[in-house]
Amino acid sequence: MFIKFLTAGGTIDKVYFDAKSDFQVGPPNILTVLDSLNLGFEYFVESVLRKDSLDLTEKDRHAIHATVTKDTADKIVITHGTDTMVETARHLADIKGKTVVLTGALEPALFKTSDAVFNIGCAVAAVQTLGPGIYVAMNGRVFSYDRVRKNVRLGRFEEIQ
Amino acid sequence: MFIKFLTAGGTIDKVYFDAKSDFQVGPPNILTVLDSLNLGFEYFVESVLRKDSLDLTEKDRHAIHATVTKDTADKIVITHGTDTMVETARHLADIKGKTVVLTGALEPALFKTSDAVFNIGCAVAAVQTLGPGIYVAMNGRVFSYDRVRKNVRLGRFEEIQ
Amino acid sequence: MFIKFLTAGGTIDKVYFDAKSDFQVGPPNILTVLDSLNLGFEYFVESVLRKDSLDLTEKDRHAIHATVTKDTADKIVITHGTDTMVETARHLADIKGKTVVLTGALEPALFKTSDAVFNIGCAVAAVQTLGPGIYVAMNGRVFSYDRVRKNVRLGRFEEIQ
Amino acid sequence: MFIKFLTAGGTIDKVYFDAKSDFQVGPPNILTVLDSLNLGFEYFVESVLRKDSLDLTEKDRHAIHATVTKDTADKIVITHGTDTMVETARHLADIKGKTVVLTGALEPALFKTSDAVFNIGCAVAAVQTLGPGIYVAMNGRVFSYDRVRKNVRLGRFEEIQ
Repeated sequence: MFIKFLTAGGTIDKVYFDAKSDFQVGPPNILTVLDSLNLGFEYFVESVLRKDSLDLTEKDRHAIHATVTKDTADKIVITHGTDTMVETARHLADIKGKTVVLTGALEPALFKTSDAVFNIGCAVAAVQTLGPGIYVAMNGRVFSYDRVRKNVRLGRFEEIQ
Repeated sequence: MFIKFLTAGGTIDKVYFDAKSDFQVGPPNILTVLDSLNLGFEYFVESVLRKDSLDLTEKDRHAIHATVTKDTADKIVITHGTDTMVETARHLADIKGKTVVLTGALEPALFKTSDAVFNIGCAVAAVQTLGPGIYVAMNGRVFSYDRVRKNVRLGRFEEIQ
Repeated sequence: MFIKFLTAGGTIDKVYFDAKSDFQVGPPNILTVLDSLNLGFEYFVESVLRKDSLDLTEKDRHAIHATVTKDTADKIVITHGTDTMVETARHLADIKGKTVVLTGALEPALFKTSDAVFNIGCAVAAVQTLGPGIYVAMNGRVFSYDRVRKNVRLGRFEEIQ
Repeated sequence: MFIKFLTAGGTIDKVYFDAKSDFQVGPPNILTVLDSLNLGFEYFVESVLRKDSLDLTEKDRHAIHATVTKDTADKIVITHGTDTMVETARHLADIKGKTVVLTGALEPALFKTSDAVFNIGCAVAAVQTLGPGIYVAMNGRVFSYDRVRKNVRLGRFEEIQ
């Protein structure tokens, strides 16, 4: 089994710069997480974007779409900022023959209390158990791209009834 | 969505007793993990056994079987020691109409480097995406109960070809 | 032995707000740290300010000075932002008969890789082993208030030769 | 400033071996801790022993004594198991002209909840602020070697009145 991980920035990759007293999107944390886990499958991590997801443009979403389409892998996990994760998922809806799972974190992966490792676990299981399609794995739930929204007030993704 | 978690001891729940310079199986760690995650589903944790999995007897496996069968939930995650996880999974093979996923950890959940949170994430996604059956989620892989073994030397679960 | 802890905000207490994609100074983290440590002395934590240290005004430093002076404790640890920690330390230089140690962190205490717990350890030892005076404990060094500066480029406090 | 760290095993360095379902004393964790902290002093870590402190013999204590005596450093921190830390400290009492601080942990350094990093912080501050002598830094207190005992029931070091 092979899983391709694409990273598109977002909270999961936020780091803190003391010199600026500021948090910014840093290099992907997911490789460190994966390498520490003695995993039973092959994987490769590729950084596509390094942005806050509120700053993603139409052009950025085209770049993600193109990267997914061109990739030879049929199991793809994308880490992405949570604010526009659903929007990007919808942008990928026309891709056929691949299982694509978007995930991210509500707290930076570097935080002791981050949900990042749990969410990556969910995405890794979902991408191998589900058939082709575009999915979002957040808050312990796996959603189809067209049945999910972020509830900003609760800080939680939920099903659209 | 509702997921029932049953705990059967094992490495995942090992704690350290300074007074005895010894590690023993403690109370389930999974509740603390789940409660910290702002999850988008209902769940309940029940402790069935608190043992090293090498010490599990036939009677213990009957107890696990009976608990799974009687439970009204159709999505059940069992945390279990890794040494005999596959044996217990096979013992549950005749249970129909439920999705049951066994998971655990190769390092205690209290360790900074533990695989516990990632594995629980995998199990939570697998139990909601898979149909009825008995599965093992370890090392980032989701296996059918009859296609998996623990490779003790590599510290890794692998598919039986 | 009794140690009074005063908190004045800074990086050590930064938290992340997903709703705003922003980091802000939150409630003191030090109480959680201290309570987890089974300490062999009495202590009390009091929040004086909750600000980035670059935003501290003359009035804020007067407030810290007044709180230290009025407090009946003779061993006081102050957690403080790093950018103006030395400035505040100098402002306290005229206080007699008390051992006061300022410390903080270059990464928020909630980060896995934070120096907060180590620095608090240094401050706790320094405040009980040193005589009256004003000190800064950072980067594993204990400095007199008039012999230290922050080297912003290296992210490290160093002795003034 | 230069600090020499000697490691003598104990709980602080306990690791977990899944293959044996067992905890054993592993290689020193202190180097990883120190290297992550951007410290403002020079240091070197040397492993003297790798044992549970209950298993230390008279010969082992001679080896620690000889290592401290021969070392050119005058600031030495020793990590040691807690059960016989005080006994070793007393064994070193005749060493003149050096500041020696023994510390350790009541939970392995690899545990999320370990006191190891805090205790090392205490020891690092104590070794640079105190004059020559043999000290124990545990539970946030710095004790002279002849005024301390471990209260096993409370899991805490305390002053002998």
